[in-house]
Amino acid sequence: MEMNSTLINGVPGESISVRDRGFQYGDGLFETLAVANGVPLLWDRHMQRLSRGAARLGFGAPEVHLLRRESEQLCRGAARGVLKIIVTRGPSGRGYAPDPGVSPTRAVSLSAWPDYPALHRTHGVTAQFCRTMLSRNRATAGIKHLNRLEQVLARAELEANCAEGLMSDESGQVIEGVMTNLFIVSQGVLLTPDLTHGGVEGVMRGLVLERAAAMAIETRTTEIRANDILQADEVFLTNSLIGLWPVRQIESKAYPAGRVTQRIREAIGDAIVAD
Amino acid sequence: MEMNSTLINGVPGESISVRDRGFQYGDGLFETLAVANGVPLLWDRHMQRLSRGAARLGFGAPEVHLLRRESEQLCRGAARGVLKIIVTRGPSGRGYAPDPGVSPTRAVSLSAWPDYPALHRTHGVTAQFCRTMLSRNRATAGIKHLNRLEQVLARAELEANCAEGLMSDESGQVIEGVMTNLFIVSQGVLLTPDLTHGGVEGVMRGLVLERAAAMAIETRTTEIRANDILQADEVFLTNSLIGLWPVRQIESKAYPAGRVTQRIREAIGDAIVAD
Repeated sequence: MEMNSTLINGVPGESISVRDRGFQYGDGLFETLAVANGVPLLWDRHMQRLSRGAARLGFGAPEVHLLRRESEQLCRGAARGVLKIIVTRGPSGRGYAPDPGVSPTRAVSLSAWPDYPALHRTHGVTAQFCRTMLSRNRATAGIKHLNRLEQVLARAELEANCAEGLMSDESGQVIEGVMTNLFIVSQGVLLTPDLTHGGVEGVMRGLVLERAAAMAIETRTTEIRANDILQADEVFLTNSLIGLWPVRQIESKAYPAGRVTQRIREAIGDAIVAD
Repeated sequence: MEMNSTLINGVPGESISVRDRGFQYGDGLFETLAVANGVPLLWDRHMQRLSRGAARLGFGAPEVHLLRRESEQLCRGAARGVLKIIVTRGPSGRGYAPDPGVSPTRAVSLSAWPDYPALHRTHGVTAQFCRTMLSRNRATAGIKHLNRLEQVLARAELEANCAEGLMSDESGQVIEGVMTNLFIVSQGVLLTPDLTHGGVEGVMRGLVLERAAAMAIETRTTEIRANDILQADEVFLTNSLIGLWPVRQIESKAYPAGRVTQRIREAIGDAIVAD
C-alpha cells in the first residue's frame, strides 16, 4: 500500500501554487474519510457536505465524479487509511476578489491510519474544556472550511492526558470538540449542540442522529453549556475516523460506561474502521 | 522589472507543499507592503506585527533577516509594486497538532501595483455596510493571519459602485473594512474601532494614530456603531497600499471633503506610494 500519496487535480504530486486561494486565504473546504479495504466510508454523505460548503462559499459544484475516480485510484489496496480531500477556489491574483474564471483545485491525499489507542474506543477518554473560543458566525458555521486556526490553537492547549478538548463560543455554549462532535445523554435523551452559529456538521454526527432516531432514542439539537455536560449521564465524541469515543472523565467529573453510548456505538459499527 | 516573482524559503519558485499548514489550516500570517523605488515601505512596522502574530500563534520568531534579504532581492529595480510576505508554521503531517520540529515556510512575492482609480485617493469613495459578519475572538484579533474567509465572503457582496465594505461583529460594532481600517471624525476627535475582539491592527492605522497625536489631533480607540459612522463629520479608510481613501458616501449619507482627513493625508505622505 502506497502511503502519503497525493493527486493534485488528478496528477500525482505534492505541490500547490503559492497563488492558490486555499493557501492565501483558506478559501476552500476539506473532507476527511476513513478508508477500509480500499473503500472510503460514507462517501455520499461527505460529498453532500462538500457540496453544501461549495454552495455556501460560492464555488461551482465540486466535480464529484473526478474526486471519486481519484479517491478510488489512491485507495485501491489500502486495508486502512485516511483519505483527505481538499477543494479550494483555485489559484488567483492578489486580493480578496477572485480572478474571473478561477478554477477550483482538488487535492486528494491518502495517509496512514492514525494510531489512536484502542482503549479510547473501548474504554473511553479524558476530555477538557479549552480556553480558546470558537467564533460565532452563521456565514461559516456548519461547513468544513479551511479556516482552522481556532482548532490549531485549541489543540495546542490539550494536556497530555486529554484526548480531546471541548470548545465553547462567546455566549457560553459548548459547540464541539477540536476534531469531534459532542453528544450528551441526559435522562435518556440524546443531545448534541446546535450548530447554527459555529462548528462543523460532522458526517458521523449526522449518522448518529439518524441511527438513534431509528432505534427510538429521543434526540435533540439544542444549546448545551459546560454545566449540562458536567451533569449529563453519558458523554461521547464522534468523527469519521474515530467513530465514537466515550468520555469517561472531564475535570473532576467521572462518567460510568453508558448504555445509550453502547447502543449508538453498535448502531454505527458498519460505518467505522475496525480496530 | 520582473513581476509576479516569488521566493519560497529563498528559492525562486511558485510551489508550496500540499502538506503546508498554511494550505491545510490557514495556520500562518501575512503582510502586504507597498514598494516604491525598490524599497518596501514601513518595513519595521510590518515586521513588528508579523512578530506579534508569530508569538500569538506559537511559531518561532520570524527570520526577519532572511525576509529582508529576500524582499530586497525581489524589489530591486521595482518603481512600484506590492510585496506580500506569507509565513506559515510549515509542512506537517495530518492533524491539528503540528509535527515536532516543524519548520516555518516563507513565501515572498512581488506583484504589480494595483490599478485603483486615482480619484479614490483624491476625491474619495463610496462604501457600504456588509452583511457578512466579522467573528469576535480575542485569540485571533489584531494579527494578520491567513484565515480570511470572512473577508472573501464580504468582498463578494460589494456592489459595483462601492470601493469598500464595512464589517460589523455580532455585538453591532463596526470593526473595519474588508481590506482597510476605519476612521471617523466626530466633533474634531479622530476615532477608530477597538480591535480587542476582532479585526487587523493595520500598519497604516498605527501610523495614522501616531501622526495625528503628534499634530495634537485628539484620538480615541473605541466602540463604533453604524449610527456613529452615519452621524460622523468625516470618514476615511486606510491600509498600506491605498494609504488613505476619504469616504464620500455610505448609503444615503454623503460626507463633504473633510479638513481632518486632509491633514492626516498630508501627514502620512512620506509612507505612501505616489499616484
